[in-house]
Amino acid sequence: MNSSPSPNPHVAAMPVYVPGEQPQGGAWVKLNTNENPHPPSEAALDAIRSAVAGDGAALRLYPSPDSSPLREAAAKVHDFPADRIVAGNGSDDLLNLIIRAYGGPGRAVGMLDPSYSLYPVLAAAQGAPVVKVPVLPDLSFDLEAAAACGAAVFFLTNPNAPLGIRFTPDRVSAFADRFPGLLVVDEAYAAFSDSDCVDLARGSPNVVVTRTLSKGHALAGLRAGYALCPRETAPLLHRVRDSYNLDRLAQAAAAAALHDRAWLDRSVSAVKSTRRRMLAELAAIGWSSVEPHGNFVLTEPRSVHRPPSPETSAHAFEFLKARRILVRRFPGHPLTEKCLRVSVGTDAEADAFLAAARAWTAEG
Amino acid sequence: MNSSPSPNPHVAAMPVYVPGEQPQGGAWVKLNTNENPHPPSEAALDAIRSAVAGDGAALRLYPSPDSSPLREAAAKVHDFPADRIVAGNGSDDLLNLIIRAYGGPGRAVGMLDPSYSLYPVLAAAQGAPVVKVPVLPDLSFDLEAAAACGAAVFFLTNPNAPLGIRFTPDRVSAFADRFPGLLVVDEAYAAFSDSDCVDLARGSPNVVVTRTLSKGHALAGLRAGYALCPRETAPLLHRVRDSYNLDRLAQAAAAAALHDRAWLDRSVSAVKSTRRRMLAELAAIGWSSVEPHGNFVLTEPRSVHRPPSPETSAHAFEFLKARRILVRRFPGHPLTEKCLRVSVGTDAEADAFLAAARAWTAEG
Repeated sequence: MNSSPSPNPHVAAMPVYVPGEQPQGGAWVKLNTNENPHPPSEAALDAIRSAVAGDGAALRLYPSPDSSPLREAAAKVHDFPADRIVAGNGSDDLLNLIIRAYGGPGRAVGMLDPSYSLYPVLAAAQGAPVVKVPVLPDLSFDLEAAAACGAAVFFLTNPNAPLGIRFTPDRVSAFADRFPGLLVVDEAYAAFSDSDCVDLARGSPNVVVTRTLSKGHALAGLRAGYALCPRETAPLLHRVRDSYNLDRLAQAAAAAALHDRAWLDRSVSAVKSTRRRMLAELAAIGWSSVEPHGNFVLTEPRSVHRPPSPETSAHAFEFLKARRILVRRFPGHPLTEKCLRVSVGTDAEADAFLAAARAWTAEG
Repeated sequence: MNSSPSPNPHVAAMPVYVPGEQPQGGAWVKLNTNENPHPPSEAALDAIRSAVAGDGAALRLYPSPDSSPLREAAAKVHDFPADRIVAGNGSDDLLNLIIRAYGGPGRAVGMLDPSYSLYPVLAAAQGAPVVKVPVLPDLSFDLEAAAACGAAVFFLTNPNAPLGIRFTPDRVSAFADRFPGLLVVDEAYAAFSDSDCVDLARGSPNVVVTRTLSKGHALAGLRAGYALCPRETAPLLHRVRDSYNLDRLAQAAAAAALHDRAWLDRSVSAVKSTRRRMLAELAAIGWSSVEPHGNFVLTEPRSVHRPPSPETSAHAFEFLKARRILVRRFPGHPLTEKCLRVSVGTDAEADAFLAAARAWTAEG
């Protein structure tokens, strides 16, 4: 009788990424995973409905291997060469592919601390060391230190999650000029920001911009994203991706969603309007917040009895959760441990959250 | 100005997998990528239609991270513990994850030659050496040599593609007992065979069975598969997979398709019936074929003027293609280079292929 075969040691030792809770029962005000509060574009839904109309025979055939419909839509939206666009099964797939192509033992993965907690997990899966460059108390970072960090590939989440800050294209460009590795600008939240680095990606030999349809386009359930790449990078990502990494429905719906720019404008305007109101009402009850550039607010609860602290944040979190309002905590980092990260919901969800926040502030 | 950053050398050097042609125009008799010729289960289509009914708001939310609906359906169909089932974005995703977890530099990936041409590509993406064990002229393989090949993980395609042969569970069990690494039985085509290795996977510490919904369930367009794993293997694959590797629609449709066993029985019966007829009619015109256990036939064209040879196979291929009948060739291997691999289509598609094969045999 045989025994259990041993896996790669770095895989056996790697950390496990824990995504935000996805409660399956109803009646939650779910403000913990930065989903778009609005239903997706009707054009995206119609693309799916068409694919399953009649006998749905198209589903029996393999999809476009390189997701042509999605790539062509992204090329049009961004005025970017389609042959430098690679589609991913969500932008997580692309982050993964980039580390497979550029990271590994002796090829470190750099990132700001704090930023997306998935990067170290993906690095560990490839046996790549991790270099963290701290976000400073004034919410900037040391550009020279970051450029000299020795990483083969650096992920700059912009806007940053969980902080919500963003770096201007000029600053990112200065970083890219000094950094000898591949700079990946993870623009998961760019739809809610007033700037992006697409122009930089268009002209730089070492800048990739990744995008997802999960946030701005309200299609987190579908898994679709894309990377705008330098000419040399695109074929490498194609090599290491699965041959058919996006299904037919995701390709069709994502393409339709990208073309529906009017929907995106309406949805983003609504999110920004609710975000402004949340910010003002939180300020009115004494919670200070980071100026937000994504579809979430990082805010520091304080009540009449409790000054800001990790314990205060945990107390407010539990108070909200008991009222079926789910937000997210990021303990263990000085810039986030006293805070809650609250996704921008619908106006009704924001009202429910704000009412509970007011109640906790008065009694908590 | 910066220059183009260098990638992992093994990625820059890796081969590129070329999937079968997917002609986008209509009017092709497409018998080249072993898709199921029948439209998928209505239950699967209804699951998708429900998800996009009304405002489709469910699509804005992330899916179940571990694909619970699909895993629970597979657990029921196979009477297998759900916590030992890992879902993949097609079974290619699972093959990839298995190599990430078990293969790498110094950890070779074994396979029969010929078998699925994607394995060496996935191995190269992880910098893993490849060990090929030849299929012998009598279509068996040397079990002791395979067990001693030194690979950390071995992929046994069963039924084998492109040959169409299958190995009995007893023989696979004997291999697993002798092999010290992880034995992956790739059962992409098991629905069309009269045996499988699910019982073996249930009781063995080193056997994984992978399944796809692409072939038997006619859902190649959707990307869904799963692995039946030893208890120690499942958590490792969860670690290296993307956090949300299957979208909501694929999870829901795959679960519904797995539950619809009556549909599967009907579809498989129809494929087997057409397969029998193709085999008999090819024999009648003098083409000899490998006894088929998948939804395809590997057959050796010969005409009145041309004996079997690689050139004859190429000639027949082009003759068929000129008539918009697409099949597949596997040049460069003595067991396949004289052959064509022809997917089992609908009866009408089989008729079109057989008529063209007869015409070529008479004139070619």
